[in-house]
Amino acid sequence: MSDDCVRPIRRTETEGVEIIDQTRLPHAFVLRRLTTLEEAAEAIEAMRVRGAPLIGATAAYGVALAMAENASDAGLAAAQARLIRTRPTAINLAWALETMRARLAPLSPAERPAAAFAAADAVAEEDVAICAAIGSHGLAILSDILAKKPAGSRLNVLTHCNAGRLATVDWGTATAPIYMAHAAGLPIHVWVDETRPRNQGASLTAWELAERGVPHTVIPDNTGGHLMQHGLVDVAIVGTDRTTANGDVCNKIGTYLKALAARDNGVPFYVALPSPTIDFRVADGIAEIPIEERGAEEVSHMSGLTADGRMETVRIVPEGARVANYGFDVTPARLITGLITERGVIRAERAALVAAFPEAARAAGIGDPGR
Amino acid sequence: MSDDCVRPIRRTETEGVEIIDQTRLPHAFVLRRLTTLEEAAEAIEAMRVRGAPLIGATAAYGVALAMAENASDAGLAAAQARLIRTRPTAINLAWALETMRARLAPLSPAERPAAAFAAADAVAEEDVAICAAIGSHGLAILSDILAKKPAGSRLNVLTHCNAGRLATVDWGTATAPIYMAHAAGLPIHVWVDETRPRNQGASLTAWELAERGVPHTVIPDNTGGHLMQHGLVDVAIVGTDRTTANGDVCNKIGTYLKALAARDNGVPFYVALPSPTIDFRVADGIAEIPIEERGAEEVSHMSGLTADGRMETVRIVPEGARVANYGFDVTPARLITGLITERGVIRAERAALVAAFPEAARAAGIGDPGR
Repeated sequence: MSDDCVRPIRRTETEGVEIIDQTRLPHAFVLRRLTTLEEAAEAIEAMRVRGAPLIGATAAYGVALAMAENASDAGLAAAQARLIRTRPTAINLAWALETMRARLAPLSPAERPAAAFAAADAVAEEDVAICAAIGSHGLAILSDILAKKPAGSRLNVLTHCNAGRLATVDWGTATAPIYMAHAAGLPIHVWVDETRPRNQGASLTAWELAERGVPHTVIPDNTGGHLMQHGLVDVAIVGTDRTTANGDVCNKIGTYLKALAARDNGVPFYVALPSPTIDFRVADGIAEIPIEERGAEEVSHMSGLTADGRMETVRIVPEGARVANYGFDVTPARLITGLITERGVIRAERAALVAAFPEAARAAGIGDPGR
Repeated sequence: MSDDCVRPIRRTETEGVEIIDQTRLPHAFVLRRLTTLEEAAEAIEAMRVRGAPLIGATAAYGVALAMAENASDAGLAAAQARLIRTRPTAINLAWALETMRARLAPLSPAERPAAAFAAADAVAEEDVAICAAIGSHGLAILSDILAKKPAGSRLNVLTHCNAGRLATVDWGTATAPIYMAHAAGLPIHVWVDETRPRNQGASLTAWELAERGVPHTVIPDNTGGHLMQHGLVDVAIVGTDRTTANGDVCNKIGTYLKALAARDNGVPFYVALPSPTIDFRVADGIAEIPIEERGAEEVSHMSGLTADGRMETVRIVPEGARVANYGFDVTPARLITGLITERGVIRAERAALVAAFPEAARAAGIGDPGR
């Protein structure tokens, strides 16, 4: 993306990797070394890295770190087993682990450590290429929408959560078109849903848009419908953790509500997705995808910076209050204007997905009825 | 409601009033004396009292406090002028002030101080009676919904913001049916939207439901759509700050998103409202109601209790981040199953509103075409 932009995961000179600890953003920029399988798993579980593509890349490097510890078949199997259970919803995680397994299983234990890092690098670089392609296709959409507005208009994009460069290895998915539009000189402005309970919008998307100089405004998650009613949103673009064969999108909790508001107000609603997030084994997202429930503290407590510069955590519900914390929801395909993939913008429906990604569909046992 | 339940506004033995300072909830229960017009106005502006009915009652007592200071015509006019600008969206405020003016203007200045307190008491007691009637009508709805569920089922109600007893003089509007159902032994459970940015759900609704022993769960505002998709919400009930002649409802920002999700999932969506929130002078809520924009700090900062028991405020966005803070949105009448008023449950449409409240419609210059 640019030289002054530290990737959220990268190789260090020795056989290890370094991540941006995203739990410390936006108030502190802290890099963290990962040197063992367990550290990689913990980084995913604690959401020091998050976002489907970055979870996949981190899992790949986690396997590489495991191979440096124990490159036996048992070591490989144990690494897979440890990493797959870190986040149950993210499909890229399974994809990256399977990619690593397929690459390493045929090798002898002696060959695996070096090959594993090369394979993880390939997973990471593939993500960069995918996101760049998503950005190009999305840029065309943004340019078209802007072209239909009166001259001098601002292009208002709404996004939810962080499907930004911090959720990937570079560029981001939903943000890739935004960064490219900004770089191309389009007068773009982004409404950033704060994205309770973990506030990835307020903490991460706002931080990375500011880093790149993209104009933006943080809003409570409750706000988007009002903005759309008043013509203040030209297009919504979000990411996805898992996309079903039918085109249903499982993304951060609250995405569905914005999709409903977009439809009700005639606002285009796009989902940017790298094809590894497509799960052709699943059809009906609402019925079939298990939704991760996370700890109560993410809802009941809030962390931030005090006026005198200390990080502090405060309780924001009555003592003893019961809370629920569902991580994701499913946006039905019928509410989605289009899926922005690395192979172009396609309709959110089975035939279009199978046609665009026939090899992945076939691997999941789904033939392309049209061929 | 019950003897052990301190009303959020009440007369003190001397000529003054006392409020629960709701900015201190849920972490501290603090009563605050109001002895001057300015203190009453400040209490509304600072949201120590909030909720359309309670704002109206507080404004009425504000006029009474003003009459104790200066009961001249100029004093009365100045009190009206000071109070009307405290919260631009709440229609009860204008209603209560007009009620007070109509009662006091014909009197001599000498008569006004005592009459003003009596008139304010009447405003408060009328609110109690209205909310109790809303509760009775709403209870019938809840009983009907529960009767259609399998025996032993829990009745799940979702609410947004605080349209509870803390928003009124007693009972609440959206909560009145809930309190009555709970008292009647119905197995009710309430999903409480935390209601960013000010968290009136997490701070106030959760607090008052706990005070009454009503089972409830606090959820991020993003969660309701997911719950509805999975059959976990039987009915939504919210309050309103202003209801238009067409039945559009202006309520806390984010209400519209829940109404969209309710419609998409076949969940009944009711609005509980005292008739003083009806503004027959306004037809199209989205086009005509000015939406209050509040301070950025409500979005950028969060207050709560630290682990060692101190109140602390933390910043939760990057330094210098731009934020927007719209206080309300408008839910179009087409999304509303019914309006629960003190005169029964009516359809959210002009003819039904005019038929139910012909005197208010006439006062606004709207005749009932059906009569």
